[in-house]
Amino acid sequence: MQLKNDLLLRVIKGEEVERTPVWLMRQAGRILPEYRAVRDSVSGFIELAKTPELAAEVTIQPVDILGVDAAIIFSDILVIPEAMGLPYEMVEKRGPWFPNTVRSESDIKKIHIPDVKDSLSYVLEAIKITKKGLNGRVPLIGFAGAPWTIFAYMVEGSGSKTFSKARAMLYQEPVLAHSLLEMITIATVKYLKAQVEAGANLVQLFDSWAGILPPDHYREFSLKYIDTICNAITEVPVTVFAKGAFFARREMGELNCDVVGLDWNMDISESRELVGNRKVFQGNLDPAALYGSEDSIKAATSRMMASFGGARHIANLGHGLYPDLDPGKVKLFIDLVKSYPR
Amino acid sequence: MQLKNDLLLRVIKGEEVERTPVWLMRQAGRILPEYRAVRDSVSGFIELAKTPELAAEVTIQPVDILGVDAAIIFSDILVIPEAMGLPYEMVEKRGPWFPNTVRSESDIKKIHIPDVKDSLSYVLEAIKITKKGLNGRVPLIGFAGAPWTIFAYMVEGSGSKTFSKARAMLYQEPVLAHSLLEMITIATVKYLKAQVEAGANLVQLFDSWAGILPPDHYREFSLKYIDTICNAITEVPVTVFAKGAFFARREMGELNCDVVGLDWNMDISESRELVGNRKVFQGNLDPAALYGSEDSIKAATSRMMASFGGARHIANLGHGLYPDLDPGKVKLFIDLVKSYPR
Repeated sequence: MQLKNDLLLRVIKGEEVERTPVWLMRQAGRILPEYRAVRDSVSGFIELAKTPELAAEVTIQPVDILGVDAAIIFSDILVIPEAMGLPYEMVEKRGPWFPNTVRSESDIKKIHIPDVKDSLSYVLEAIKITKKGLNGRVPLIGFAGAPWTIFAYMVEGSGSKTFSKARAMLYQEPVLAHSLLEMITIATVKYLKAQVEAGANLVQLFDSWAGILPPDHYREFSLKYIDTICNAITEVPVTVFAKGAFFARREMGELNCDVVGLDWNMDISESRELVGNRKVFQGNLDPAALYGSEDSIKAATSRMMASFGGARHIANLGHGLYPDLDPGKVKLFIDLVKSYPR
Repeated sequence: MQLKNDLLLRVIKGEEVERTPVWLMRQAGRILPEYRAVRDSVSGFIELAKTPELAAEVTIQPVDILGVDAAIIFSDILVIPEAMGLPYEMVEKRGPWFPNTVRSESDIKKIHIPDVKDSLSYVLEAIKITKKGLNGRVPLIGFAGAPWTIFAYMVEGSGSKTFSKARAMLYQEPVLAHSLLEMITIATVKYLKAQVEAGANLVQLFDSWAGILPPDHYREFSLKYIDTICNAITEVPVTVFAKGAFFARREMGELNCDVVGLDWNMDISESRELVGNRKVFQGNLDPAALYGSEDSIKAATSRMMASFGGARHIANLGHGLYPDLDPGKVKLFIDLVKSYPR
């Protein structure tokens, strides 16, 4: 189906476009009362993500309500560990928690590379329903966690300030770590390809915990697997967002990907110098800027837009929306980007 | 009193020294069974910090047990908010929690710049007892939180992944934020000067939450106040450790301080290029490296020592010790640094 708004895809192709496209990480989520109403109709986040009709509904909400230039499928990066045999719970205010973890060779033997069309059929189904509902209005983004970030949760068993158990394994059992990372990578490639087959127009890898590794470990235990995934996904554009990986920007420029996400710590012109000119940038307003007054949001948005200089840019935040942001302020940011003079 | 081991101070003066000095952030703490025994004799962390004899005892423990080249007074950065009228509790496994926070002008009116010799006399007393106990064996480091980090806790009321309330204030109420930061800065200068008067041979500023600010906010709301403190402390050398502030390394080189701490994300030669040659570096082994085997710790330590190139370097970790590290492994790291061939 021909897309009515293909601005995002045209920017990625390197075309001159009439304005900068914009979408927001976590745009389908708690900031919208419409999302909270759907979420309250089920037992929680995981049930919502596993009910394709509802996942599709909340995926489309920000397109209708906020006017973003892309939808991103409502799901979670931790569906991959679950499909591999490591189920998790989402604990209110504390985040994900895994009753079992992977710490030894015998733990690895208990997990498997999933048949994603079976165990993750609910995501693929949600993508198909979303595509019908979008009816070509905007592109749909599929996504997965980068292998290091998924590994971090599978070993640690929960979120953590330090992920010290996951990082300990890199020093104690590097061979074991690589075999788990390889399994995750194979599962992720299969999963992203299935998302594309189901209708995703592009895909994004989230390396949320990139920033806790020293540069040499990042290269060995994260970038290597991101590189494998980028090379495997040839069907659609790929975005890599590695939060905190300021030290790997040069290497990001050499990945076989189309878009590099920047967080709000990263200076834009320095990043352009390090990453080079071949990548489209995505980002990078400080999400906290949307707590400010209208004037302050206007100033911050203009500063950001001017720094990116208009070309090869997909506007976004430097991280996901904070759940207590005012949807009116969020919409203001989107409108400001859309009306920003070329 | 003449110090028997003044290696650290001689490195800071720029002298050629016989070997690299070493100490560890959080060296007085849970990794040592001797610390846990003292801690178990009182109600908790805060009582321990407020009992000068015991604080002095645990301060000296790592000098005896681990053989480090400096002691750092056992205390907490949050004694400053408490002295300003904002008491806190330390909740097991969750960290600090403030029953009251500062979010408005009327909240600011309820706090004050403390008479540190009165309200923080327990820290000053602990320093005096420690100095006697050390009897000139090694220098004693005093410390405080950098104003932005203290501000973050006072506004947020606890630790946080995003410190979104504290960061919101920077956008919503920048004038209010600056007046709180100024109060914290004045209190901190008084506090550090009192620590020096009590016997601290050098002082360190910890900007633990530097890494969550965008570069422009970091300059405006953090570096500015660090600069004020560095200019005010003329009596002893000053170390600035701003975790995650990779984007501010050039500015760190221009501060009126002697030592710049590096975290384990920061490439050493790149940091030298950005910071320049006038500062001594402190750091930066990944604390998780100490989970590895002896061979792996040897390799990681050698790599770090070689990268710093021997000169103008105080060996340390890139962050505090993790509480579950094996003290034997920690001591191995210290011994490896001390015997590293020049």
